[in-house]
Amino acid sequence: MKTLFIIADGLAGRPNDLDGKTCLQAAKTPEIDDLLASRGIGGLMDPIKPGVRPGSDTAHLSLFGYDPYQCYTGRGVFEAAGIGMDLSKDDVCFRTNFATIDNQGNIKDRRAGRISEGQDQLEEALSELKSEKYPEVNVRFKRSTEHRGALCLTGSDLGGNLTPTDPHELGIPIPNSEGEDKGSGKTAEILNEITKKARDILSDHPLNEKRKKEGKLPANAILSRGSAKYPEVEPVEEKYGVDASVVAAGALYIGVARVAGMEFKEAEGATGTVDSKIINKAKVGLEELEKGKGVVFLHFKGADNASHDHDAEAKVKFIEKIDETFGWLKENINWEETHLSFAGDHTTPIHYGDHVADPVPALVAGPSVRKDQLEVFDEYSCREGGMGRFSGNLLPITMSYSNQIPKFGA
Amino acid sequence: MKTLFIIADGLAGRPNDLDGKTCLQAAKTPEIDDLLASRGIGGLMDPIKPGVRPGSDTAHLSLFGYDPYQCYTGRGVFEAAGIGMDLSKDDVCFRTNFATIDNQGNIKDRRAGRISEGQDQLEEALSELKSEKYPEVNVRFKRSTEHRGALCLTGSDLGGNLTPTDPHELGIPIPNSEGEDKGSGKTAEILNEITKKARDILSDHPLNEKRKKEGKLPANAILSRGSAKYPEVEPVEEKYGVDASVVAAGALYIGVARVAGMEFKEAEGATGTVDSKIINKAKVGLEELEKGKGVVFLHFKGADNASHDHDAEAKVKFIEKIDETFGWLKENINWEETHLSFAGDHTTPIHYGDHVADPVPALVAGPSVRKDQLEVFDEYSCREGGMGRFSGNLLPITMSYSNQIPKFGA
Repeated sequence: MKTLFIIADGLAGRPNDLDGKTCLQAAKTPEIDDLLASRGIGGLMDPIKPGVRPGSDTAHLSLFGYDPYQCYTGRGVFEAAGIGMDLSKDDVCFRTNFATIDNQGNIKDRRAGRISEGQDQLEEALSELKSEKYPEVNVRFKRSTEHRGALCLTGSDLGGNLTPTDPHELGIPIPNSEGEDKGSGKTAEILNEITKKARDILSDHPLNEKRKKEGKLPANAILSRGSAKYPEVEPVEEKYGVDASVVAAGALYIGVARVAGMEFKEAEGATGTVDSKIINKAKVGLEELEKGKGVVFLHFKGADNASHDHDAEAKVKFIEKIDETFGWLKENINWEETHLSFAGDHTTPIHYGDHVADPVPALVAGPSVRKDQLEVFDEYSCREGGMGRFSGNLLPITMSYSNQIPKFGA
Repeated sequence: MKTLFIIADGLAGRPNDLDGKTCLQAAKTPEIDDLLASRGIGGLMDPIKPGVRPGSDTAHLSLFGYDPYQCYTGRGVFEAAGIGMDLSKDDVCFRTNFATIDNQGNIKDRRAGRISEGQDQLEEALSELKSEKYPEVNVRFKRSTEHRGALCLTGSDLGGNLTPTDPHELGIPIPNSEGEDKGSGKTAEILNEITKKARDILSDHPLNEKRKKEGKLPANAILSRGSAKYPEVEPVEEKYGVDASVVAAGALYIGVARVAGMEFKEAEGATGTVDSKIINKAKVGLEELEKGKGVVFLHFKGADNASHDHDAEAKVKFIEKIDETFGWLKENINWEETHLSFAGDHTTPIHYGDHVADPVPALVAGPSVRKDQLEVFDEYSCREGGMGRFSGNLLPITMSYSNQIPKFGA
């Protein structure tokens, strides 16, 4: 049997999201409700454990069956993996911004005027980055959307706990990074050297001459944050013995899934925002299952974006788009051979606009579940569900229904 | 107060076990239901944690209150303890088979034709097994039922992570064992030496000459698997300060309980199969409590055997035999001074025929529980029970109702 694992980022909410309801309650979700009523079992899931406010990265690790307290090292490595960098255990990665430094050497704009053209040229120029003191350390930079990018240092003795060179502040010079444990001093030293070199390379770059002439802010520095050593995450294929694909658009989610050994598959029109064509993700997902993958992970991001923007109407609309996608899925899944699970990765209330610890509704549908009486899928109804309240691990729970995971012990 | 702890192996199932019901739902269990309704509280238990497929050994460790992720080393030590070998922290143990090797030195039968006579003579002959290279290492072999047995090497510096000499394959020579960590190379070396010596001893043994004349396969080798260093499991008496007995028939369960410090007590007619006289286990159990033990663990195996055999009717019948035993227990327990708990150690669905992660129903009955409204004991009803959903630890939960366990902290 197979597993289709669907996460709607920031799906869950609080009662004051919209007229005394959560957005999930306010949204019309006949397809999801019908799936739960006809084939499903529901419950309330603490993404990590009760009382822990999950990040999206730590939440996904926990949902996949890893203990983020054991393996989480930081966000940089997931961002780097998410934009397509191939990583291994000797890598230390950072999220970066192109930024603007003024003539006094102070940070003028952390996003280089949200630069939207020419970043490929800058990436090309930065390909010559290298440490002179530690030439054995490999240095890689890759741009992403707008001002975003990732930096990766490769060396067997590099620690990943260092302070950022991005101070999240303007009008001050780029701070020096410092190692926060004894293995990370060398990494900080290299990051500081690379940061200076990048300024030299970018300051003289023709693109920035052009930008200045056009009255735009030059992208004359890179700021780094989110340092992370490649984590000890056993790939899904080794941990569970099953091949997996991820269909997502946001770099962070692609990255967590790639680090967990899932193969990234693109879907046309998938944007990682509220306007994403998520139906195409569902189509690619079912194709992947048909082609032989044992597990496919679909990630829908829009509900979280709308929550961070305090936009209840956009969140309701996106949830209704998810519901339409479930309508298509229900008709097209091979229900004799598949278990599907669906949940939020955390609660993001409209008014607070950030992740909170409140548990999220979760469902598993398919032939092996002990179906319960639930007919509505939301934050309230699911507390009466047959799965009760549980912490994380929704992927192995679903895979066990599909008889896909190995025994622990004999 | 006292604790009677009863586990029915593989008790729980899935909705498609038998005509849209689990076997536990299909079985008539008026006594268990009445016990729950009159004195009990129910719940759903994840034997280890949600999404983990338990082995029987890891599940029992978890039910007893140990963390199998901390202490589990492998099955061999429980098999050896279960057939009566006395063990200590310097032991590395293996499950063994008597096997047949052909004239080319290849494995012809992994069970020596399921040898059923004369194994005592072979055990006696193997008592001279010894390592010449490491004479300080003590070597013990003990036969069990049919072709089964255990091998135990005793030495303070022996690691327990090594590859098996039983390849689970025919037509090939016995593979050499190899250490899987740096402390286990020596153990592998000794195992390989012992395996060769055993072949020499057994090949010349008169019993095998006789077997060959009778057209039977000779038991001319031993194959070893399930290597395990003695685990760091604090005995129940030290952990909880209470003496305990185990009444069981399967070697694995006796072994886990003995390693946890429980004293093994035999019951007449107890076989570890569906035809076991489990009422006699209940009688021995109550005698043990009367004689002064604080905890008695009864293990009923048959429901799991029937599940592995995909035999729903046999499972239903065995569950109904358990129910009769509860009828006797209910009349004979001193209910003013005893808490009884009852659960499966894992779910074994009829169609899949192996353990899965689905949670199991559990109940505790006795004077101190906060009785709930449950009147039926099964995988569905118990989700509405007063214990909610919880992970393992059913023994200390029950012992706490009996005011038997120490405080953690002050």
